[in-house]
Amino acid sequence: MPEYKAPLRDIKFVTEEVLDINNHYANLAGAEEATPDMVAAILEEGAKFAERVLSPLNRIGDEQGCTFKDGEVTTPEGFKEAYQQYVEGGWPSLSHEESVGGQGLPESLGMMVTEMIATSNWSWSMYPGLSHGAMNTLEQHGTDEQKQTYLTKLVTGEWTGTMCLTEPHCGTDLGMLKTKAEPNSDGSYAISGTKIFISAGEHDMADNIVHIVLARLPDAPAGTKGISLFIVPKFNVNETGDVADRNAVSCGSIEHKMGIHGNATCVMNFDGAKGFLIGPPNRGLNCMFTFMNTARLGTALQGLAHAEWAYQNSVVYAKDRLQMRALSGAKSPDKAADPIIVHPDVRRMLLTQRAFAEGGRALIHYSSLLVDKTTKGSDEEKAEAEELLSLLTPIAKAFLTETGFESANQGLQVFGGHGFIAEWGMEQNVRDSRISMLYEGTTGIQALDLLGRKVLMTQGATLRRFTKIIHKFCKEHKGDKRFKGYINALSKLNSEWGDVTLKIGMKAMKNKEEVGAASFDYCMYSGYVVLAYFWARMAVTAQVKLDEGSSEQGFYTAKLQTATFYYERILPRTRGHVETMLSGADNLLAMEEDNFLFLG
Amino acid sequence: MPEYKAPLRDIKFVTEEVLDINNHYANLAGAEEATPDMVAAILEEGAKFAERVLSPLNRIGDEQGCTFKDGEVTTPEGFKEAYQQYVEGGWPSLSHEESVGGQGLPESLGMMVTEMIATSNWSWSMYPGLSHGAMNTLEQHGTDEQKQTYLTKLVTGEWTGTMCLTEPHCGTDLGMLKTKAEPNSDGSYAISGTKIFISAGEHDMADNIVHIVLARLPDAPAGTKGISLFIVPKFNVNETGDVADRNAVSCGSIEHKMGIHGNATCVMNFDGAKGFLIGPPNRGLNCMFTFMNTARLGTALQGLAHAEWAYQNSVVYAKDRLQMRALSGAKSPDKAADPIIVHPDVRRMLLTQRAFAEGGRALIHYSSLLVDKTTKGSDEEKAEAEELLSLLTPIAKAFLTETGFESANQGLQVFGGHGFIAEWGMEQNVRDSRISMLYEGTTGIQALDLLGRKVLMTQGATLRRFTKIIHKFCKEHKGDKRFKGYINALSKLNSEWGDVTLKIGMKAMKNKEEVGAASFDYCMYSGYVVLAYFWARMAVTAQVKLDEGSSEQGFYTAKLQTATFYYERILPRTRGHVETMLSGADNLLAMEEDNFLFLG
Repeated sequence: MPEYKAPLRDIKFVTEEVLDINNHYANLAGAEEATPDMVAAILEEGAKFAERVLSPLNRIGDEQGCTFKDGEVTTPEGFKEAYQQYVEGGWPSLSHEESVGGQGLPESLGMMVTEMIATSNWSWSMYPGLSHGAMNTLEQHGTDEQKQTYLTKLVTGEWTGTMCLTEPHCGTDLGMLKTKAEPNSDGSYAISGTKIFISAGEHDMADNIVHIVLARLPDAPAGTKGISLFIVPKFNVNETGDVADRNAVSCGSIEHKMGIHGNATCVMNFDGAKGFLIGPPNRGLNCMFTFMNTARLGTALQGLAHAEWAYQNSVVYAKDRLQMRALSGAKSPDKAADPIIVHPDVRRMLLTQRAFAEGGRALIHYSSLLVDKTTKGSDEEKAEAEELLSLLTPIAKAFLTETGFESANQGLQVFGGHGFIAEWGMEQNVRDSRISMLYEGTTGIQALDLLGRKVLMTQGATLRRFTKIIHKFCKEHKGDKRFKGYINALSKLNSEWGDVTLKIGMKAMKNKEEVGAASFDYCMYSGYVVLAYFWARMAVTAQVKLDEGSSEQGFYTAKLQTATFYYERILPRTRGHVETMLSGADNLLAMEEDNFLFLG
Repeated sequence: MPEYKAPLRDIKFVTEEVLDINNHYANLAGAEEATPDMVAAILEEGAKFAERVLSPLNRIGDEQGCTFKDGEVTTPEGFKEAYQQYVEGGWPSLSHEESVGGQGLPESLGMMVTEMIATSNWSWSMYPGLSHGAMNTLEQHGTDEQKQTYLTKLVTGEWTGTMCLTEPHCGTDLGMLKTKAEPNSDGSYAISGTKIFISAGEHDMADNIVHIVLARLPDAPAGTKGISLFIVPKFNVNETGDVADRNAVSCGSIEHKMGIHGNATCVMNFDGAKGFLIGPPNRGLNCMFTFMNTARLGTALQGLAHAEWAYQNSVVYAKDRLQMRALSGAKSPDKAADPIIVHPDVRRMLLTQRAFAEGGRALIHYSSLLVDKTTKGSDEEKAEAEELLSLLTPIAKAFLTETGFESANQGLQVFGGHGFIAEWGMEQNVRDSRISMLYEGTTGIQALDLLGRKVLMTQGATLRRFTKIIHKFCKEHKGDKRFKGYINALSKLNSEWGDVTLKIGMKAMKNKEEVGAASFDYCMYSGYVVLAYFWARMAVTAQVKLDEGSSEQGFYTAKLQTATFYYERILPRTRGHVETMLSGADNLLAMEEDNFLFLG
């Protein structure tokens, strides 16, 4: 019953009209082929694939889930065939280097396609999603030979990849990692240990699986500085580059979990499996950061995905479901009752989803233009883009997944009791979205990364890089009466952001625990400010279009109305966050551990 | 792995020390038997039943769910046997009239037992919970003969009951109800129609099921004024009061749903089933209100239940799980890492759950003392209690279920990735809790009931009844330096509550839609203020005990610390709600229906 339609008009609005992507591509090295026509054609094909192939498999994926038998995982009906179509369509190679068989198109164009694929069927999208992470890691840190052997097969999609980090006793705290890598005489390593929560660790969709694995060399220093990165293929690869005998890595079981049933979450056992070092010894975590940033942005996208999906489906229901009359009198007197979209509280729930989905879309694609610059920009552009991304990634990951889950729940709530029933699909969307606040670093970890590492450790320099951009935008539009409401509010928030940072920084000098005590509220606050910036930009673009006499009056008017909703009904949440983040660590730390529970 | 321990110490704190229940019982007509010893003995037995019998069945209920075959429902393994023990223990009769076989103990004592049963296994608790609603309806509106025939069997627990309101096209909007009741020649009625979402509509735990059904008489006026209430037994009852032939009511299917898998949510088909009118014709909805208030308070309890359950289990995990060092230096240097309870952000999540669970407990039991007074108080007490309950019921239902769901999610979040995995039980708690914001009137409906019907339609009189109580409490403790922080803040909030009500009332006189536009934020705001009142009361009680030199220093200190946490880190949320609720209806109503989606 639920379905996905690719929001092509909105993607165009954000990327072309607001972010001026055509100009961006025109000035980006190696992006010559990303002409407006080419972009449009790719998006249209991607939309078809998402709508026609993946969206119909979303419910099936949840209902059937993955099955595990004798070390093998069977994916839900249709998943394998969809993957074949994906490979035949050349999608895996879209934004990878031509030297390894890629199409060399910008990462940001890949992100637009990924948005559609991810929203139509998140569980399915994780298989190519993990591959993409593995590919980026190999692209940056692999030797030519490793690229030739593994990357070329990942780029065609014949093989898929995974990232093996977590172990039973450590997720966040990778310094505790135990998996061992002992040198073999032939220059390879014997990898032994157990990894858990390995998404797409085993499945039936591709001929081989390339695991990127964190492990310790025998003489490695303790903690995070003694971790190295390895390639461990499911099947060893022979000299002609073909799949040979089975390597000593196997799936021990798959998890029974709340959602994303269509994706296999595997326990992976490495029993002296043959592996190959990527990058320098003991620098695995640094190499992994490449992947982690991409992965975190990819998970941020999950927030947008579930918000968009919830919004589309709950609007359709709200227009259709008849229940009660509007308080100011019947709006559809010819019907037995009014459609529930007339009720202000239903609209509140719909517009909350819309504000987060469309605001999130702007943040995601803005960030992915920065990603383009980190690989293809000038040195100066690269440095700026990296700094901005280091700030925006934890915000996007934490804030968009928290608001994505909220939106998924609002979408369910619009359906009333029916929202709780599986066949309507809204509860699956909630369950699937719940993981996004946990993996790739929980919300708490993102918040600590943002406030501790990104903001305070740079003495606010990284933050100022972004607040200057907001400041410049506000200055440009300050005199314009049409934007007064947005610009005044945004301006104030922007200075307040600096002020609260300074206050927390001062406190933290006396007591480091103040960072952890303020971080969550600081991160959410930052997210609201960032989205306020994008909503102001979207409002300016829309207003200009309207004033130019655009024929799409409804489209642009709705943008302005959503911006107003965001400023008047969402931004007030910042008030609570400011008060809370400045309330100090004592109210959290005072309680003795023994006094948390008194249960006889 | 997860388990429930009855928080007897905390129930005692709230009921005896804060709410002075012993004095309440001493002054309550017919509550002579509820002596402190008797209460303690009952609670201890209830705790054992919840911990030993029901808690172990909670996971099983989720895993196995109910199965439907040939019109019959099989409940999960152990559910039936647990119900037998419940019946043998005399629990169903606890708070029902002695004239029908009950023990005649106060409703509030029943609520304390119900809290434990509900928290240990919500799905199971719904079977007796629905019976309790049916019993209350019959007690108040049934004829002596009906009571003799049906109520006595419900009170022993031999039979169970249901409430059949919702139909496929109407849940909130009962005026659209279609089920028909046509008079038979013998004075009974033939009931025909389809009801959905009937909890415990069919199961294998009792000999008969007594459905309380809303239907329309042939000549009934349209809308809510033409609805009557009927008893429709699953099996007809013969002259000796025993189960006879099957009535024409049957279960058509059960729903596949997000949570509460252990409870059967049934489609019930009435095919000319024999029914008996309860109360006067066309006054069914009024009779039903009796049930609805009890049911709403019962659902409010669900919020407390999932918050308490989440809190207990996430504290245990947070003390056990080792991950990272405290920012201010290692707290357990002898271990591989510190237990995560040292991290301020983990404590933020734990204390949020605690503040809502224990604050919710105070609100629930305060309300249930009011329920005692509505049936057994003097006329004056009755009138006051009814007015207070009419205000507090929608607040408790909406606010405690919203914060219960938040708490369930915080509990899951403490577990990191493990929280998403079924075996830890935290995700079940989230799924089970999600329904509470939907049934018995969604959060939006409660909010509208609160602001529209309870507050504005009484010109604020009902609200003033409660704000006066807060005012009096603040006045009593105003001079006391020990409580300055709480009392100042509470006092301000209490006047602000009146102020914002007036402002919205003024707006609503111009545009009725302003009520619906403000209602959600108004309701949440009200909930935060109500809990602030109870946290201040709990803080006062705890401080007095400490000053008296109580030996339970840890217990009472933790109460003060939780109160401070609530005031400093939860109450700031009210700032956003005030600003939002006063932002007007335009930002919700401006958008044209056609402009919500542009999907090609």
